[in-house]
Amino acid sequence: MSQHVDNAVDAVRTYIADHRTAFLDDLSAWLRIPSVSAQPDHAPDVRRSADWLVAALKDTGFPAAEVWDTPGAPAVYAEWPSDDPGAPTVLVYGHHDVQPAAREDGWNSDPFEPVVRGNRLYARGAADDKGQVFFHTLGVRAHLAATGRTSPAVHLKLLIEGEEESGSPHFRELVERHADRLAADAVIVSDTGMWSEDTPTVCTGMRGLAECEIRLYGPDQDIHSGSFGGAVPNPATAAARLVAALHDERGRVAIPGFYDGVVELTDEERELFARLPFDEERWLRTAKSHGTGGEAGYSTLERIWARPTAEVNGIGGGYQGPGSKTIIPSSAMVKLSFRLVAGQDPAHVRDAVAAWVPGRLPEGVRHEISFSPATRPCLTPLDHPALQSVVRAMGRAFDTPVLFTREGGSGPAADLQDVLGAPVLFLGISVPSDGWHAPDEKVELDLLLKGAETSAHLWGDLAEHWRHAP
Amino acid sequence: MSQHVDNAVDAVRTYIADHRTAFLDDLSAWLRIPSVSAQPDHAPDVRRSADWLVAALKDTGFPAAEVWDTPGAPAVYAEWPSDDPGAPTVLVYGHHDVQPAAREDGWNSDPFEPVVRGNRLYARGAADDKGQVFFHTLGVRAHLAATGRTSPAVHLKLLIEGEEESGSPHFRELVERHADRLAADAVIVSDTGMWSEDTPTVCTGMRGLAECEIRLYGPDQDIHSGSFGGAVPNPATAAARLVAALHDERGRVAIPGFYDGVVELTDEERELFARLPFDEERWLRTAKSHGTGGEAGYSTLERIWARPTAEVNGIGGGYQGPGSKTIIPSSAMVKLSFRLVAGQDPAHVRDAVAAWVPGRLPEGVRHEISFSPATRPCLTPLDHPALQSVVRAMGRAFDTPVLFTREGGSGPAADLQDVLGAPVLFLGISVPSDGWHAPDEKVELDLLLKGAETSAHLWGDLAEHWRHAP
Repeated sequence: MSQHVDNAVDAVRTYIADHRTAFLDDLSAWLRIPSVSAQPDHAPDVRRSADWLVAALKDTGFPAAEVWDTPGAPAVYAEWPSDDPGAPTVLVYGHHDVQPAAREDGWNSDPFEPVVRGNRLYARGAADDKGQVFFHTLGVRAHLAATGRTSPAVHLKLLIEGEEESGSPHFRELVERHADRLAADAVIVSDTGMWSEDTPTVCTGMRGLAECEIRLYGPDQDIHSGSFGGAVPNPATAAARLVAALHDERGRVAIPGFYDGVVELTDEERELFARLPFDEERWLRTAKSHGTGGEAGYSTLERIWARPTAEVNGIGGGYQGPGSKTIIPSSAMVKLSFRLVAGQDPAHVRDAVAAWVPGRLPEGVRHEISFSPATRPCLTPLDHPALQSVVRAMGRAFDTPVLFTREGGSGPAADLQDVLGAPVLFLGISVPSDGWHAPDEKVELDLLLKGAETSAHLWGDLAEHWRHAP
Repeated sequence: MSQHVDNAVDAVRTYIADHRTAFLDDLSAWLRIPSVSAQPDHAPDVRRSADWLVAALKDTGFPAAEVWDTPGAPAVYAEWPSDDPGAPTVLVYGHHDVQPAAREDGWNSDPFEPVVRGNRLYARGAADDKGQVFFHTLGVRAHLAATGRTSPAVHLKLLIEGEEESGSPHFRELVERHADRLAADAVIVSDTGMWSEDTPTVCTGMRGLAECEIRLYGPDQDIHSGSFGGAVPNPATAAARLVAALHDERGRVAIPGFYDGVVELTDEERELFARLPFDEERWLRTAKSHGTGGEAGYSTLERIWARPTAEVNGIGGGYQGPGSKTIIPSSAMVKLSFRLVAGQDPAHVRDAVAAWVPGRLPEGVRHEISFSPATRPCLTPLDHPALQSVVRAMGRAFDTPVLFTREGGSGPAADLQDVLGAPVLFLGISVPSDGWHAPDEKVELDLLLKGAETSAHLWGDLAEHWRHAP
């Protein structure tokens, strides 16, 4: 590391140490607002949270910060242009709404009264996602202080959603409506985590998601399994056979065309994944599962991060109550979700599924299939210059080499990639023990401040190494 | 037909015609008692129905008629010994409880106010089963009148259950408790139907029934299909694969040992089934189904009457509500029922199923399996002398050749066969249009009286051709 960088690291670290108390006080004030988007009672709190954030961003120095209304809960938008007109534009994404939480769910303290125990800050939203949004405010101040600048080295934009915990029902529409103002060269999503306290990582992509519900109809009503059983098709059997046919004997999805376009893992990616200190027993405990399984030829991490899947989320048909009922059910249904990886087109997958189902049904069973709006996969190649900047910034903050992960889940980030046509990078400092959506959610204070350090280093690095969008 | 038989036919027919009005009046009085065993409100009515029947049987001439209590609804027992000590003993089975019914379900008249429209008697229980129990009272009187006897030609016993429409929860216990008094050479079940108005048939057997519920457990709780999907086993998928594996590609049940002991159809039986005027389109309408399917190499009637089956009565797992939920469910379940045919031992089938399941589950999915009490199949060979008597008696009543059916369902008759060690014969005059369990249940008056004629001819024929139990 050069002296120049060393100095910057020290300057950032000093600034952040000096402002730690005020930062935590402010964050705590925000965490006290129970901005639970899923509970209508809390709608005023979600609005209060948005207003609070607008004020905080103005205090931080953002020349423009405003509430963006949606038909649901409001988002917050802010921008701080660089005085360098040729600098890249970066959009930070996060959310200010939180999951429901109540003391009686098993919290050791009031979820909306932040408290520090040990070196952890406990509160609903501490990690998901207020803490990770808010470290950027400290980060940009540290960036300015350490560099002597009066505006960020990049054109900085923030979009902080208010409905992420409710499934982002209006997010895409919001992004489309404001696409001009949101235009960016790269999107930084700060709503994820890293491998562990000791292993900082950058997430390079998320899987996409296509979902459908298939309803199968047999007899016009439930019929007697004695009088008719063995001679007419049973839609529950048909549903089961459909699900059983989803995978071949090697665990690959057996729907023709499903893998079309899949971007295969590179040797480098596989090698980098393999460097992560992965403890399968421990992972199984996290997964609350009792065995691994899946596509042959891939490791567990490769399966959840880089391979597409077909999963049954729900199946139902016939009598499910206590005891027995000797019927052939009149209908059955399955809910399927397909995780998609880079290169897969959700519309193509949808067509492949829709084309596959009818041929697998017996005569006398008709079907209906409905698809939910899909989420595209996103993936930033390891050699992308913006990704390299994130890695360097994080490396400076953590003083340790940064590895790579991906995210098996899917998120609204893909809408940003889609609408804005910008690569999405994931910068998160949460760790698996933070308890997202669970009682006693917390954030590690050291990591929170490392997040601010990373943010502080990132803007200058981006401006230096990525003068213009490719 | 001999002159002797002709005379007997005429004498029986004349007696029945002469007593038709009183018989229908009495039956109507019984039908007015809403003996709905499934509805606790009607418990006093079920008892009233039993008391009414005891009185009616005594009026008929049965020297002994009594109510038999159970922990649920009461049964009625009656006996009328023959003055011929060497005569066979026959036990008639039926039930005096009825399905629920309410005018607003779609009845054109009060279900408990019997009414004759055209040549049909409409009331709940008209066919199922009061009408078919009651024709035996007229039958035995006609038998005595036509033969000049003062007691029946056979030792006649009646067991009329009060909980058949509630699943006969105490029937087996009742039969076991009274096995000595119920001892018989043959059981005549009058709780079934015949092919059609124009095609009188005798049912020669019922399928048995084994039922189980299989619960599959994967992760300890529902887990995120993005974070974990593709790398851990999904119990809903496992449930589906289990169901899909139940049958091979020829529609045969694929559980090893399932077919052990199955009595195959004889050529004669197949030929006799094939003589029935079967209209598959019409049957499909009755089945409210839109296609046939099942074990290759068998006709629809063979499939429902004479072949064992595996059916899914219920399947469930994961999220079944509106919309989607991206989870790997923690558990799933399937309810299976197996119809069994003669030669199959329910305990052996149970063992075969229990042995088959574990080997079909992936690592990380554990299971629990529970079986309901099973019902044995029953089948009387075509050449059984008692069956031959039923065929002749019915032939005399209907003046037309009698064909054979079986019943795909399963019933408490099997308990009689089991406990008493006697063959079970089915003598029913109901037709498919009678609307069992449906609004506007009715019985065809002509057929009801043919039932009484059959009953009148049967006792003498049995005594003549089957002097002693084999």
